[in-house]
Amino acid sequence: MQFSPLIKDLVDAFKILPGVGPKSAQRMAFHLLERNRQGALQLSRVLHNAMEHVKHCEQCRTFCENKLCEICANPKRQLNTSLCVVESPQDVLAIEQTSEFKGRYFVLMGHLSPIDGIGPADIGLEQLATILEKDNIDEVILATNPTVEGEATAHYIAQMCRTNDVKASRIAHGVPVGGELEFIDGNTLTHAFAGRRSF
Amino acid sequence: MQFSPLIKDLVDAFKILPGVGPKSAQRMAFHLLERNRQGALQLSRVLHNAMEHVKHCEQCRTFCENKLCEICANPKRQLNTSLCVVESPQDVLAIEQTSEFKGRYFVLMGHLSPIDGIGPADIGLEQLATILEKDNIDEVILATNPTVEGEATAHYIAQMCRTNDVKASRIAHGVPVGGELEFIDGNTLTHAFAGRRSF
Repeated sequence: MQFSPLIKDLVDAFKILPGVGPKSAQRMAFHLLERNRQGALQLSRVLHNAMEHVKHCEQCRTFCENKLCEICANPKRQLNTSLCVVESPQDVLAIEQTSEFKGRYFVLMGHLSPIDGIGPADIGLEQLATILEKDNIDEVILATNPTVEGEATAHYIAQMCRTNDVKASRIAHGVPVGGELEFIDGNTLTHAFAGRRSF
Repeated sequence: MQFSPLIKDLVDAFKILPGVGPKSAQRMAFHLLERNRQGALQLSRVLHNAMEHVKHCEQCRTFCENKLCEICANPKRQLNTSLCVVESPQDVLAIEQTSEFKGRYFVLMGHLSPIDGIGPADIGLEQLATILEKDNIDEVILATNPTVEGEATAHYIAQMCRTNDVKASRIAHGVPVGGELEFIDGNTLTHAFAGRRSF
């Protein structure tokens, strides 16, 4: 015996969500059917709208539904000569929450990964080259993730910056604030020592 | 800074799912936008269909899109004189997977809970009374959950059965197969001793 076709389809559809297996999918389907049909209809509408209308910002490549995202449409931000390169829109949000950076962003939507067939064109590096050539950029801050692919991508972009005579910098790697030394991995500690600053 | 309105709405909409907080909702939204727009559109369609068309089986109250569910529409099942009372459609699936029970079901879609204002009418007990009176039922197997509310509901239905001269039985409580005695709670052990059978 199985659930009726519509319920089975619904459980299967939920399984495409990250971190959702058969049991969670079933729980979600029944929760909505029993307790929140209005919310589910709203989710269905919003999901459809977002998938149809969300595209990439023409300047920084982040997700947005207009031609330019909020930051790229802000003239004050455009006058700033710093450009921060990140891997994903979530990274932009994380940096914005610190209120530390007032410049523009460029969102790669991924990282270089030859093994997966992801080359420079796939992460918008041609568009970035045009920005470095034409726009008034003094410094590129490379804030890709501290993974092998993220580092490789940062190195590649630093090379591009050198070609265009733009200063490139990498965010610091070291011991996170509030972390305890004994639980930090050796690689991070090596970075923390190599990047030490006079007190 | 926030995400663009459509993305924010999508993240908020995902938060209605059980076990999904702000971070998981954000992960789901970006995962679908980046990697699986087709799957997301399919989820949107299926979600809408299910919420619009899934209703309750007229006989056993489980979820289905037709007048009768698969089990209630099966004439062989209807000839069986046992009726199993469970709290949710998921319980029906769990019992069906054992292939142990060949009778009909009655799905309460909840349990008695005066503190939440859930009385006999809310869990379909009037409909159950009609079934006990008119249909040819010999035995009612009470398979509600072994919680305080589940037990209270079972007692209430057992009383109804007595009024209609129908035998009522409760599924056994005891040590789960494969469980280890030292990790079983005292309440379950008490049940296991009280319900012992001669070897």
